[in-house]
Amino acid sequence: MHIEMSSEQIQAIVEDSLIGYQYLQRISLAERAALMHIVADEIEALDDELIQTAHDESALPMARLVGEKARTVNQWRSYANAIKTGIYVEARIDTGDGAAKANIRKYNKGIGPVAIFGASNFPFAFSTAGGDTASAIGAGCSVVFKEHPGHPKTSQLMAKAIVQGLTRFGAPESVFGYVQGGSHEVGETLVKHPVIKAVAFTGSFGGGKALYDIGVCREEPIPVFAEMGSINPVFVLPGYLKGNAARFATQYVASVVLGVGQFCTNPGLLLVVKDDPVEDFKRELSAAITQVGDAKMLHAGITKSYIEAKSRLVDQTGVTLIGEGAAAQENTAVAAIYSASAATFLENNVLSEEVFGPTSLLIECENVEEMEAVLKVLPGQLTMTFAATEDDIKQHTSLFNIAQEKCGRLLFGGMPTGVEVVYAMHHGGPYPSTTDSRFTSVGPDAVKRFMRPISYQNWPNEFLPLELRDENPLQIERIIDNRRTTASH
Amino acid sequence: MHIEMSSEQIQAIVEDSLIGYQYLQRISLAERAALMHIVADEIEALDDELIQTAHDESALPMARLVGEKARTVNQWRSYANAIKTGIYVEARIDTGDGAAKANIRKYNKGIGPVAIFGASNFPFAFSTAGGDTASAIGAGCSVVFKEHPGHPKTSQLMAKAIVQGLTRFGAPESVFGYVQGGSHEVGETLVKHPVIKAVAFTGSFGGGKALYDIGVCREEPIPVFAEMGSINPVFVLPGYLKGNAARFATQYVASVVLGVGQFCTNPGLLLVVKDDPVEDFKRELSAAITQVGDAKMLHAGITKSYIEAKSRLVDQTGVTLIGEGAAAQENTAVAAIYSASAATFLENNVLSEEVFGPTSLLIECENVEEMEAVLKVLPGQLTMTFAATEDDIKQHTSLFNIAQEKCGRLLFGGMPTGVEVVYAMHHGGPYPSTTDSRFTSVGPDAVKRFMRPISYQNWPNEFLPLELRDENPLQIERIIDNRRTTASH
Repeated sequence: MHIEMSSEQIQAIVEDSLIGYQYLQRISLAERAALMHIVADEIEALDDELIQTAHDESALPMARLVGEKARTVNQWRSYANAIKTGIYVEARIDTGDGAAKANIRKYNKGIGPVAIFGASNFPFAFSTAGGDTASAIGAGCSVVFKEHPGHPKTSQLMAKAIVQGLTRFGAPESVFGYVQGGSHEVGETLVKHPVIKAVAFTGSFGGGKALYDIGVCREEPIPVFAEMGSINPVFVLPGYLKGNAARFATQYVASVVLGVGQFCTNPGLLLVVKDDPVEDFKRELSAAITQVGDAKMLHAGITKSYIEAKSRLVDQTGVTLIGEGAAAQENTAVAAIYSASAATFLENNVLSEEVFGPTSLLIECENVEEMEAVLKVLPGQLTMTFAATEDDIKQHTSLFNIAQEKCGRLLFGGMPTGVEVVYAMHHGGPYPSTTDSRFTSVGPDAVKRFMRPISYQNWPNEFLPLELRDENPLQIERIIDNRRTTASH
Repeated sequence: MHIEMSSEQIQAIVEDSLIGYQYLQRISLAERAALMHIVADEIEALDDELIQTAHDESALPMARLVGEKARTVNQWRSYANAIKTGIYVEARIDTGDGAAKANIRKYNKGIGPVAIFGASNFPFAFSTAGGDTASAIGAGCSVVFKEHPGHPKTSQLMAKAIVQGLTRFGAPESVFGYVQGGSHEVGETLVKHPVIKAVAFTGSFGGGKALYDIGVCREEPIPVFAEMGSINPVFVLPGYLKGNAARFATQYVASVVLGVGQFCTNPGLLLVVKDDPVEDFKRELSAAITQVGDAKMLHAGITKSYIEAKSRLVDQTGVTLIGEGAAAQENTAVAAIYSASAATFLENNVLSEEVFGPTSLLIECENVEEMEAVLKVLPGQLTMTFAATEDDIKQHTSLFNIAQEKCGRLLFGGMPTGVEVVYAMHHGGPYPSTTDSRFTSVGPDAVKRFMRPISYQNWPNEFLPLELRDENPLQIERIIDNRRTTASH
């Protein structure tokens, strides 16, 4: 059942989120972590109804959804554990000299209520109870989540689990507000509301950029972190394909079609040099892609966009088909790999546009210099992958140096799909892959988007936040007078 | 001599800054810190010519300038020392399992060349070689600084010292670009250039907001940190003035007129409750302000703005003069304190506008509830100060809770002027005091504005940045597999 909330309803929910925020500001780090573990338990306890509902709404395979649910639970737990260490409060104490030099103490607190817009391609891990919600609550911020129109029932089941967790913990429901409505106005009302102090979004460039523009142009500008995907180029250095073409083609095609190509980190561009056994490699790619069955995408809108983007690509001069998957059913996505010369690519911006789905473009470069020329014109990316040897890195330093300025994650071998939820993960990158290259939306560091510092000068100990008190009751690491320590003061 | 660079000249300097940036990316943390210490030495070695020039250009007292120079040198040194610890690279290593789980390593690197606009009121500490420049270079970013029209000769002397330091260290001059020109177009050309990846500004709301708008609306939006000042309210809780009126009035007036009121943290608003001996207090304020001599401001433009803002304030219904300083010379700033009722303040937005200079407004509240009502309508502030007892904090929790959401630094007693350069300092705050409440422009944490993460997945050890190598050659603290450690791996 589709519900379109009125502007008044949305405003009431947003205003309520201030109460939830104040609550989260009052409880300690340890309590916030405990709350998150309870929410994780509630999500874990959701039964097959969740998986079946998500499968019905998203067409994603049941097994994948079971895995994604586990990942979602893990996000809440691992972020809770990270928060509890105190790493994100970055407590600093300068004790002063009791006279001219003041006693100053600083820590990071929640920035305020956060509006969150989930992605269609991860109905659990990047949606209602996804990483953005977990990291905002971990930061001490209440959340107002906009139901995803692609999976409203799944969203509602997840929202119910979150609220059950809050209630069981004793937190007010206003910690998690839930807004329903598919129109652009709903998103705009939410982002423009003065109570909202930050926004997180995962999805298309169009959607993310629109929210960013609203956020930075409102009367009080607010940070909008939008992760908007990219084409994740894979660079094959000379010599790499020799004796390796078949294995690499299989691996690449598997990454292209994984999840029907519906990942932010889907490899959309494959660059090779002509000296290599490129014709052999193309045959292997063709053989591999031909074996791929057609599959249902997340929803009709995405299928339509995919078909349109693909035919736009095909229509460009110099783009030829290497191979195509099966097309057995109606309204499915047919996988495909095309090729074009680097010269063609450099002349035509259309070729660097993301085709969201199981399609990839092979770019044949005359040599590594031309590969570098292509790299230079690419916009910011979430990932860049090098199929290379260690010798290649030595020989082509400038290629790697340029790549480091253009992406959030650099892979040596492997494929960009698969974003692990660990401290070292950076899921972000220079614009237009995100709106702020300084932040990640995956891994516990994602909480940083929603925290801001505050200093207390000569403030009486008993009224300081626990993180800054002399006795260090939370036993967190702090910097006291320029030294890291977990000691009390 | 005023020089207006052409757009071509500016573009050449900006493009050159990419070479400086690449250089800073290549050298190690320790080398960057060493370079900063050499720049500090060069600034320290500048002789009386610098002080005299700055005095002539800014009308600031020589003694104050000597102190500000020392502070500036200290900024370079303390930021260098902080950077060397590795705290800002936030190195994280997840070693994986050699199979499905990848080996992922992340650290923070420079975001790219940074455009910096200095402030007129601190010709050393917040200008050419100020905290923004030191923190950008500390982050590994080259700088393109726009000469300040209020103190061009001072700017040039400082720029020369920076370049001498760079040369002595063996760094290219392109690490620090220097742009001259007073027109808005110069700033716009700079901020719009695609090579520029971040902007820092200290100054007026108008100037900062204009640069912010350019930065977030360019084709590739970039972060713009603008610190735009605030009115820094001081709340006097009931009972505090009893027996304390004279001392407090003297202290307050001293803070209002310090540096001819030309500080971002100048207290522009003083809130008291009527029950208190307010009439006595007003007499004390009047006595104190009457003793203040008139003084030259930084430049004619600021004096004009001050006189205009003051007369705009006086023109408002319900605003009365408490006392005024001497007016012995032409074209000087005359200090003044006015008063108005909270009711008047709540009705009229003009009363909450910053009057940049030695003027402050006393607001008489009927009770603490009305004081809270005033607090609620105040926009974001750099600081809020409470003249209160510990008992007051217990009794008026909601006042303190609201204040924490509205400012960057909370003071218990004392005065907001005086911003120490320490880890625990937060010089920032909710909009409109800055454009991003998540960052500070004072203290080593200022470097965070200019760093972004990058992950390396399965990357060969010898090609990793030193910060992430197995052997931990920089001996920095890292998080390896969820544990903080300084060990090698």
